[in-house]
Amino acid sequence: MGAVKVLGTWASPFALRVEWALKLKGVEYEYANEDLLNKSAELLRYSPVYKKVPVLVHGGHPVAESLVIIEYIDEVWKDGPAFLPADPYERAQARFWARFTEDKILPGLFDFYLKAGEEQKKAAEELKENLKTFGGSLKGKKLFGGETIGYVDIVAGWLAYWLPVIEEIAGVSIVEELPEISAWFDELLRVEVVKQCLPPREKIYDLNRKRREHVLATQGGHP
Amino acid sequence: MGAVKVLGTWASPFALRVEWALKLKGVEYEYANEDLLNKSAELLRYSPVYKKVPVLVHGGHPVAESLVIIEYIDEVWKDGPAFLPADPYERAQARFWARFTEDKILPGLFDFYLKAGEEQKKAAEELKENLKTFGGSLKGKKLFGGETIGYVDIVAGWLAYWLPVIEEIAGVSIVEELPEISAWFDELLRVEVVKQCLPPREKIYDLNRKRREHVLATQGGHP
Repeated sequence: MGAVKVLGTWASPFALRVEWALKLKGVEYEYANEDLLNKSAELLRYSPVYKKVPVLVHGGHPVAESLVIIEYIDEVWKDGPAFLPADPYERAQARFWARFTEDKILPGLFDFYLKAGEEQKKAAEELKENLKTFGGSLKGKKLFGGETIGYVDIVAGWLAYWLPVIEEIAGVSIVEELPEISAWFDELLRVEVVKQCLPPREKIYDLNRKRREHVLATQGGHP
Repeated sequence: MGAVKVLGTWASPFALRVEWALKLKGVEYEYANEDLLNKSAELLRYSPVYKKVPVLVHGGHPVAESLVIIEYIDEVWKDGPAFLPADPYERAQARFWARFTEDKILPGLFDFYLKAGEEQKKAAEELKENLKTFGGSLKGKKLFGGETIGYVDIVAGWLAYWLPVIEEIAGVSIVEELPEISAWFDELLRVEVVKQCLPPREKIYDLNRKRREHVLATQGGHP
């Protein structure tokens, strides 16, 4: 099938998705940690449009955009556990909720910890509402994939590790009032593959705390 | 397979995608034209998260988000022409370029015709650059699907009809300097199914011209 390489960076939850997907399929891969302030010639060559991580390079051919990469991995390594359900309607639901986390929850998270005062309060309320909607779509399942990790878990699972850190930085708790999300986080963080790939919590904390301080200082917010 | 209904609105290129997809597959459907200023109970029930068109209702079950709907249609009506290629790598490329038009070209288009002066100039340059990149990915093919319409054509094909109208409103030409995009537009607009579903040009023109006037008047731009 050709050699597999991931261009990622330790702080990127999007690169983490790709690692989870490959490990879940049992695919051996090489990992290159990119310095995004000094991008490698390889990254610029393999991601000419966005020049962003993650990139999956498979037999010399690049695939960019983490959601695209995950579907690619699912379609190429069919022997491993399937990420998307077989039924077209369920597949559509999974794709819908994956996009929901990209389009609603992800930008909401930035507003939540990179703003202050009333703006932050509003962002926290919206984020809570969106997480509640998202959690409701679990409909009592342990994971979005059911008993095992599926497409939506891979796409959105980074929240289980990142959100509590972000809450600490923002000084606001959201998840404690969302039992479905809370239970899903616990479930995810028990999965062996998930645990294996996580970067140190302190590094995530430091990086994002500095980002908040920088943004508030340069954009005139009041922490 | 159950009855098929589309909730759309005549001015929505995203609803148009769904109609194209159904017609290409030869699927009979009912169409409900929504008034977005006075949304129907049906739309609110079937699109509870975004409350937006298009929604595909199939056998009473709703699917929302046009890109998700198109993949759903492709997977359910397998007898018709395939929208996505069979090869996983080519599928990934198609998904990548479809998202590129959503994430880069679509927002760029709004900046292009809803801004004025230097801001508009900058937006026009960016839009041209992104369209050039997009056109380059055709690599000499007539359509993104090859000889027939594929996934990327369905997702991005609305540009062939909308962009010339937008250019006229903005008072700036872009496409004349992009021969690949220009040829692709011509090719698309020759396709019978594409021609069948287009709303009247004057209505698109009027709606978007009024939108530009409104935005510039309320946000203090200088047309």
